[in-house]
Amino acid sequence: MNERKQIVIDTLGSDKGPTAIILGASLILNEHKDVDVVLVGDENLIKEEMVKLSMDANRVKIIDAKDTIRNTDNIMTAFYDKPNASILLALKELASNDNTIGLLSAGNTGAVLVGTIRFLRREDGVRPCLAAIMPNAADAFTCLVDTGATIDCQPAQLHEFAKLGSSFMHDLYKIDNPRVALLSNGAEPTKGNKLVKETHKLLAADETLNFVGNVEGNSAFSGCCDVVVADGFASNQLLKATEGTATRLITDIVKYSKMNNRPDIMPLVAHLMAKYDISNLGGGIILGAKKLVIKCRGNSGEKAILNTATMLINLSTNQVLYNEVK
Amino acid sequence: MNERKQIVIDTLGSDKGPTAIILGASLILNEHKDVDVVLVGDENLIKEEMVKLSMDANRVKIIDAKDTIRNTDNIMTAFYDKPNASILLALKELASNDNTIGLLSAGNTGAVLVGTIRFLRREDGVRPCLAAIMPNAADAFTCLVDTGATIDCQPAQLHEFAKLGSSFMHDLYKIDNPRVALLSNGAEPTKGNKLVKETHKLLAADETLNFVGNVEGNSAFSGCCDVVVADGFASNQLLKATEGTATRLITDIVKYSKMNNRPDIMPLVAHLMAKYDISNLGGGIILGAKKLVIKCRGNSGEKAILNTATMLINLSTNQVLYNEVK
Repeated sequence: MNERKQIVIDTLGSDKGPTAIILGASLILNEHKDVDVVLVGDENLIKEEMVKLSMDANRVKIIDAKDTIRNTDNIMTAFYDKPNASILLALKELASNDNTIGLLSAGNTGAVLVGTIRFLRREDGVRPCLAAIMPNAADAFTCLVDTGATIDCQPAQLHEFAKLGSSFMHDLYKIDNPRVALLSNGAEPTKGNKLVKETHKLLAADETLNFVGNVEGNSAFSGCCDVVVADGFASNQLLKATEGTATRLITDIVKYSKMNNRPDIMPLVAHLMAKYDISNLGGGIILGAKKLVIKCRGNSGEKAILNTATMLINLSTNQVLYNEVK
Repeated sequence: MNERKQIVIDTLGSDKGPTAIILGASLILNEHKDVDVVLVGDENLIKEEMVKLSMDANRVKIIDAKDTIRNTDNIMTAFYDKPNASILLALKELASNDNTIGLLSAGNTGAVLVGTIRFLRREDGVRPCLAAIMPNAADAFTCLVDTGATIDCQPAQLHEFAKLGSSFMHDLYKIDNPRVALLSNGAEPTKGNKLVKETHKLLAADETLNFVGNVEGNSAFSGCCDVVVADGFASNQLLKATEGTATRLITDIVKYSKMNNRPDIMPLVAHLMAKYDISNLGGGIILGAKKLVIKCRGNSGEKAILNTATMLINLSTNQVLYNEVK
């Protein structure tokens, strides 16, 4: 029983509350018979939900944690202010329990990253970053690093993130020489803010990278590159604007369908929702740590938790994230 | 004849070449009988095109300029390196010719802004910024400042841009107390990069502004605010990602229509294209200068040039941009 793999799940800090996360955990147990879960959060609530959902108590370890780090907390002091925060106890469990293969949290991104750096930093000292795997217009995937873990970046950090992203896409999708692009406000090397211009030089000079130059926000997910490098603030604009525009167009199509009495258009809506619904997408993956840590979106429902766990199990089986950067 | 209003048009530097711009100028003359144009560019080419298009030579003044400032040029030295650049001669004409009401250029954004600062800066010393007027999901308009004129901003500059945007939306759309929001990676005041956090304090402390806090990229154009404040790099990500996602979804709908043999869906495509086609939108407006300067998108066609000129004429009639900031 102790030899079985476990996924650590932080049940606190998500927008939808712990019940959605615990429901997601029950889906994981149903779907993946060889994996158990460690649920971190309010023990009484977890036990109540487990009874309601008829979850097998033998496959669940509970770590009681009443506190959570909120978006309004100061990340730099949060771990001292809240020593019983669920993400802190979850990361400690991940670091100390050899059976655990990874961790899911839909809580505060900064806390997940700061905690990962503290408890799971690799010996080579690389600063972990948060990668999003986005479906691109060429029916493949583009890895965006960093996606909100480090908001104010230095050029050398973006250079490290580029290497982590390249290595990840090589290992996961077997891409020989992943094309790495730098997010900027113009294709020319002279375009960019100070950070981007400096980073451009570093990436261009690194012969181990297949650097293809700057990419703009309208073609970042066109399939023209395998890795897009950006600081956490810029990539947040890119991701949120992409999500907001997709939602707005789909809403417009529904309105059009109603106003013009065209119910026959609704299958198109379902098609687009399936293609652009970010909640199906799982979460961001922390690259460059000793174990797999996945930050789910704050509004993740049970389905997103299951999908993310499935991704984590697949990644863990491939062992890809344990590799050192080339 | 000398009393007639004139619009100065830079015919060089656009992606589609001077013929598209000159064609746009001929549409302006047809549409606006009381306005003439000053065309700046290759005199021979302009004359040839004017003959082809049967343009009235009495309504066109030509300023010969063979050179253009490209995206690869260094903006800081370009005006010294290229004293006959079309945008430079166009701005000089705008500053010195009292009949001119404004200028359109689809050339290098940095050159348009640097030139405007040099030749058309107001006495109060405000740094001009570039505003985009975006249709929002509430069927109104949202003003985004700055949109690429100043890539690396200081907090005090963003504060000035907020005041310019607020004043503009008040004057143009008669909005009593425009809601000003700051683009960030989270709604909470603690979210943001260093620039955003500092700017947040300035905007919150300014009692003349109706500051409604941070806004994220997915709701910037939801209608929750009238003005969105961001540095030129972040707003470029927001705009380009919005454009790229809209284009990608519309392309997907066309593919779906073909694959499922559903030509009846194409009117929906036309509806969405009309609503999201950025080329219909005109260009960015420089706020805070002595005269109206509009930067059209680099890929502007003749229709965009006409639409932008119409906007310029309307704005000029309202005299709104000559007001000082409140």
